[in-house]
Amino acid sequence: MLGTVLYGPRDVRFEERDTPTILKPTDAIIRMSATCVCGSDLWPYRGINPVPEPTPMGHEYCGIVEEVGSAVTSIKPGQFVIGSFFASDNTCPHCQAGYQTSCEQKEIISTAQAPILRVSLADGTLVATPDIPSDDLIPSLLAVSDVMGTGWFAAAAANVKPGATIAVVGDGAVGLLGVLSAKQMGAERIIAMSRHESRQRLAREFGAADIVAERGDEGVARIKELTDGIGADSVLECVGTQESMMQAIRSTQPGGYVGYVGVPHGVELNGEALFYSHVHLHGGPAPVRRFLPQLIDLVWNGKINPGKVFDLTLPLDQVAEGYRAMDERRAIKTLLRP
Amino acid sequence: MLGTVLYGPRDVRFEERDTPTILKPTDAIIRMSATCVCGSDLWPYRGINPVPEPTPMGHEYCGIVEEVGSAVTSIKPGQFVIGSFFASDNTCPHCQAGYQTSCEQKEIISTAQAPILRVSLADGTLVATPDIPSDDLIPSLLAVSDVMGTGWFAAAAANVKPGATIAVVGDGAVGLLGVLSAKQMGAERIIAMSRHESRQRLAREFGAADIVAERGDEGVARIKELTDGIGADSVLECVGTQESMMQAIRSTQPGGYVGYVGVPHGVELNGEALFYSHVHLHGGPAPVRRFLPQLIDLVWNGKINPGKVFDLTLPLDQVAEGYRAMDERRAIKTLLRP
Repeated sequence: MLGTVLYGPRDVRFEERDTPTILKPTDAIIRMSATCVCGSDLWPYRGINPVPEPTPMGHEYCGIVEEVGSAVTSIKPGQFVIGSFFASDNTCPHCQAGYQTSCEQKEIISTAQAPILRVSLADGTLVATPDIPSDDLIPSLLAVSDVMGTGWFAAAAANVKPGATIAVVGDGAVGLLGVLSAKQMGAERIIAMSRHESRQRLAREFGAADIVAERGDEGVARIKELTDGIGADSVLECVGTQESMMQAIRSTQPGGYVGYVGVPHGVELNGEALFYSHVHLHGGPAPVRRFLPQLIDLVWNGKINPGKVFDLTLPLDQVAEGYRAMDERRAIKTLLRP
Repeated sequence: MLGTVLYGPRDVRFEERDTPTILKPTDAIIRMSATCVCGSDLWPYRGINPVPEPTPMGHEYCGIVEEVGSAVTSIKPGQFVIGSFFASDNTCPHCQAGYQTSCEQKEIISTAQAPILRVSLADGTLVATPDIPSDDLIPSLLAVSDVMGTGWFAAAAANVKPGATIAVVGDGAVGLLGVLSAKQMGAERIIAMSRHESRQRLAREFGAADIVAERGDEGVARIKELTDGIGADSVLECVGTQESMMQAIRSTQPGGYVGYVGVPHGVELNGEALFYSHVHLHGGPAPVRRFLPQLIDLVWNGKINPGKVFDLTLPLDQVAEGYRAMDERRAIKTLLRP
């Protein structure tokens, strides 16, 4: 088959690779209905994370099960399934606590920008939809695999409660779906921090009442201004830089909550500043698996439409253009069709 | 009157100072029944915090109200009162949220190692006991003013729940009272990290079932060993150094809780390490005022006896020896009687 490989900064190739096969009895093989490019793929694409050798790419996926290993009992060929970017057994103490991305057996999924994918720990990792979905549901079901689940975790980690005032730092797909998640959880007022018109529009569509274009000190001052000087009850940090993290912490009221899901790049938190901020801080790699059943249900029943973050759809063999469009911020998120 | 002044590292003097008087209509004047030396007083005493000029000391207090300003309505002369180390109005949004140490009007109390103390924002800051306490209750009521309230906040911030497994980093008075707090909150198993026999004994008396003497990597490994490789549900960080903070975070299971109350000194948290730890982090200067009514009640009814942390009692004029004994770890905490 042909699959996506990153050779170095801005060098994405779609080239011949071995077709995945069952390696362990707990594996499943999936024929992809759709895959996509993640904001986190841009870190190595831009050379911020090193790429020491040609690296297969992709960790978001949904599709039809083709084959399962001999030990797989709950997942069956022919089912339409969705999984998270970490395979997990869903039985160890960390999984049972709802932190499947800290599973004792966790394995990262990293070859999903391809037509065929091997998923390990299939019983623990994959969740089947009630039926084979219609084509128009595919983007939203794919979103559940990572960005929607991650935005949801940001909101959950930030303890979003009905009636609360929320700010969201970051207007990428995760931030936008953080807005949608906060809205679903009953937030009364959502402030999205964004400087890009198309993203602002989607933020409003997902439930944001206010947009703050300022960043850093000015951004914090605007949030304070909009909240009678108090700060937001909960802030979702969906970027992962020092600036975004501090913006989130400083926009939160004492005793409020910061949920952070942007993979930190060069972030160092000063202990004293954090101490006197009085915020609750929680985050990490989103345990998407915990939320899959609920989020699939919300998509299936038309309650949420997270697939709207895909504003560019390309055939999989044009994956390089998909990266370029996101890098240049021409696209929020690129969906790829094998 | 004579009061305590720190002139520089290890230079504590008990010398003539102006007797406090009402300065604002919201003030109260208290005749101290007891005061004490705090672990945090040792930072400047040891020269770790600079002492640019002679500095009056002390922020823990209880005693009889002598006089109140014209705007004070709830506190009356003759009452026995306890307050926190921050004066707070108890009405601003941060106070209402339970974070009185982030009060919009907060003022630090810093002259309490003296026979007479002026407390600002008296109505918001002070809580009266049901009656004048007997002498044997004084140490425990004094403890409520800071160390007990701070240990309690550490446990609350670490989300201690009935049945949980808890670890406590730090065997100072706050750590020991963190043990007592976790026990009161129903923790099933409490692991105290301590290398000092007298402190281990008190930790056991307060409810610790296990003692871990190791620190750093070895300390973390021991906690993991004692928790079937999982880590503790909640960890109380009661020191404030880089080592203690990382020991707390790494001893906590993914999805678990770290409550930190040690004032951070040179602590820098690596964003990535925190991210992948999956812990909840909350702490800061303990909003003792929130807990005063409940803790006074527990002491008054003999449910807790936090005054046991005072293992040295001196007349106030021997305050310098009180500091020395704590600095040399001959005493856990020194109570001073005016």
